[in-house]
Amino acid sequence: MNEAQASAGIRLHAQMAAVGELLRRYHAAVGETLNEATTADSAAVEDILGQLRDLLDALHPADVAYILESLPPEDRLAVWHRVKSDRDGEILLEVSDAVRESLIADMDQGEILAAVEPLDADELADLVEDLPEEVLPELMASLDAQQRERVQSALSYEPDQLGALMDFEMVTIREDVSLETVLRYLRRFDELPAQTDKLFVINHENVLTGVLPLHWLLVNSPDKMVSEVMAPDVNTFAPDDDAYHVAQAFERYDLVTAPVVDASGRLIGRITVDAMLDLIREESESEALSRGGLREGEDIFASVWASLRNRWAWLAINLVTAFVASRVIGLFESSIQQLVALATLMPIVAGIGGNSGNQTITMIVRALALDQITTDSAKRLWRKELLVALVNGLIWGGAIGVIAWLLYANIALGIVMTAAMTLNLLLAAFCGVGIPILMERFGRDPAVGSSVMITAMTDSGGFFIFLGLATVFLT
Amino acid sequence: MNEAQASAGIRLHAQMAAVGELLRRYHAAVGETLNEATTADSAAVEDILGQLRDLLDALHPADVAYILESLPPEDRLAVWHRVKSDRDGEILLEVSDAVRESLIADMDQGEILAAVEPLDADELADLVEDLPEEVLPELMASLDAQQRERVQSALSYEPDQLGALMDFEMVTIREDVSLETVLRYLRRFDELPAQTDKLFVINHENVLTGVLPLHWLLVNSPDKMVSEVMAPDVNTFAPDDDAYHVAQAFERYDLVTAPVVDASGRLIGRITVDAMLDLIREESESEALSRGGLREGEDIFASVWASLRNRWAWLAINLVTAFVASRVIGLFESSIQQLVALATLMPIVAGIGGNSGNQTITMIVRALALDQITTDSAKRLWRKELLVALVNGLIWGGAIGVIAWLLYANIALGIVMTAAMTLNLLLAAFCGVGIPILMERFGRDPAVGSSVMITAMTDSGGFFIFLGLATVFLT
Repeated sequence: MNEAQASAGIRLHAQMAAVGELLRRYHAAVGETLNEATTADSAAVEDILGQLRDLLDALHPADVAYILESLPPEDRLAVWHRVKSDRDGEILLEVSDAVRESLIADMDQGEILAAVEPLDADELADLVEDLPEEVLPELMASLDAQQRERVQSALSYEPDQLGALMDFEMVTIREDVSLETVLRYLRRFDELPAQTDKLFVINHENVLTGVLPLHWLLVNSPDKMVSEVMAPDVNTFAPDDDAYHVAQAFERYDLVTAPVVDASGRLIGRITVDAMLDLIREESESEALSRGGLREGEDIFASVWASLRNRWAWLAINLVTAFVASRVIGLFESSIQQLVALATLMPIVAGIGGNSGNQTITMIVRALALDQITTDSAKRLWRKELLVALVNGLIWGGAIGVIAWLLYANIALGIVMTAAMTLNLLLAAFCGVGIPILMERFGRDPAVGSSVMITAMTDSGGFFIFLGLATVFLT
Repeated sequence: MNEAQASAGIRLHAQMAAVGELLRRYHAAVGETLNEATTADSAAVEDILGQLRDLLDALHPADVAYILESLPPEDRLAVWHRVKSDRDGEILLEVSDAVRESLIADMDQGEILAAVEPLDADELADLVEDLPEEVLPELMASLDAQQRERVQSALSYEPDQLGALMDFEMVTIREDVSLETVLRYLRRFDELPAQTDKLFVINHENVLTGVLPLHWLLVNSPDKMVSEVMAPDVNTFAPDDDAYHVAQAFERYDLVTAPVVDASGRLIGRITVDAMLDLIREESESEALSRGGLREGEDIFASVWASLRNRWAWLAINLVTAFVASRVIGLFESSIQQLVALATLMPIVAGIGGNSGNQTITMIVRALALDQITTDSAKRLWRKELLVALVNGLIWGGAIGVIAWLLYANIALGIVMTAAMTLNLLLAAFCGVGIPILMERFGRDPAVGSSVMITAMTDSGGFFIFLGLATVFLT
């Protein structure tokens, strides 16, 4: 990326408005037949499309991707067709998965091959899973042996392993040369790989022996040898490391790039802060999506059918848990018939349990993500959370109990309400600590689905506790 | 940070275990009087503390911070007292707000001043709000004029404005010199500011005229002039820019550092990718916290009282909304008495509305954060979401309606159930698009609280729709 492109970011919204204006003029010129370029033969239309092309050419690929994501499907494809074909690949890399699908669906096999061929091996590996299966054999055949091997290596790792995210654009040097030699060597490059902040020092067996930050190359005398200046002990990672933990290391140590080595210490790739930034953003996004009950990111202009498929899984789970809670209530229909106030008050008991349980679980999930919970501290946490729940139950439960007593002139009902709220809060605290710890122990991601589980527990549990107590003591 | 420290990250867990082991031996040696260093005078205890000190000295400040966060309060302070006092400042910068509070509470005025004096202006500004008020006058007096001015400038911005996050460690050069001169100039530095990936080119009025990436300095011939090589057009930001938007630009354009300029183009600071990485992580964390019903990050070992204060605000809001929903049910007590199945089925209607509304709102909040919703697209979104809700209502509502009919042998009840679920899903879709867009229009952050609002709407709305329909058609 060069600086001139980057500066476009500031003007992004103006340019988006300009694209919108050109699309409006285009619509006006060709009527409603936007996708049929054949009808667009008048000089006016040609002029508009030319302007659109020029505008897109001047934009950074990430900005074109952003504009494509913001447009409804027909306009999106109209803009996509105006992008120079040699930029298709880098733009496909930048758009969201959902939008990428819609763009690839519109391309024929030749266009796809032409788009992805200029990409690097790691970028290619990112795209491969979204490409139609029939282009893969031809694509792999078109790569040279090294590229093919790198793509296959990247594909052999899980998406959350470092091996799937590393790139291969490294500048390597030997330690027995002077900094002057290194400076002369670098001048032979047209440009250095993006985000290069250090050179990797390797021996003749390709084993990493140190790193030379560009800073140190610049502040030290050119007469010094690399071996005098380099740092022998570096923050290296392995290709099967959990990428999210590596991202935490990047954040903790303010890294820009880091080497990836195999088990015998040989340099096999590097990882950059921009990949980590993308990862952190994607991770937090997918967490927000799953918490909100969506399976994956959704193109805001997705078809109704695509939206339904994305959302059905969680709606179905919710319906099942709601149905279970409803059957719990069903057990106590005769008590409710005798004292209809129970039906009125029961959502309060379930609600406060769900809210409080989600507070606990949010805190525990965060501590688990940072690896800050040990067996010893889990016990302390349980004690603390149960105590917090007890205090909350007595105070809030007491307050609502008094209100229920006054509303229904029934002191026993008020006492049952207080007791039920306290017990449900204790249940919420117990499960709020236990569910994420158990999920972690069984190798599941505690951020996904634990909120649904706790709400299911506190709903059914809350109804059972409240209606059960009422049945025993009030009817 | 130097590379040797960074590599410690990989060994972090081993070192944490070593700290834990030393603490256990220390506990065993001094009994339970851990905080009273006076009792620790035996040689064995001195030896343990010496080992702890050595271990901590070898750790990166971020790793010490991590260990402090993972320890319960007494152990945390025992470790904190063993940290060399000249590292206190950088460690305080790294710990979470809640833990920072507990550490500062344990320091006297002299210790605090000694800890923060070595910090840079932007770091100092980060800490100032957590320091006891009485140290501030003395602290400000101890700074030189430039430092004081910078701290005050940083404090004059909101925490989410770039001015509060920028630092002042820039290397500036003139454009009328050769690269050779620049290389010689850099060799006069002992080290370059962390993460420096470009030099800022300014004229005699301090106006930024371009940037010279280190890469270009290295690959170009030293005979060239800076003006020939530099990029005149750069991605500059203003101190009152929204930091979160700047972080998106960093992500989009893979930036490492960027200049901050005032209205007349004068260079006043720079912003680095590590500040942006912290910001994105904090933003996603605070979103997760508020979604989970916590006001702020909580030290997992916080006292019960501190936890209660952190959680009460949201519990109170939840109780109010649950109470309103309960009063809505209260309106229909006579209908429930006639047909107790209504009490059993009503949580299903409310639940599916809440779940579906949260799906919609999650998607809209994300699109709003990316600025991808225009007035025109809002209308399309509403149409799409209402259609999705209608289909979901007919299918899921229909299924549950059939189950209700079979369970209670009452076909009218099944039809009312289907109608109520469909209507509540439509309400959820309407509010799910409308609430975040309205919040955004009124300048509020749509990520905070919109989930609570939608759930309140679909609870009360769901009960009202279902019980209302039932009252009209069934009783």
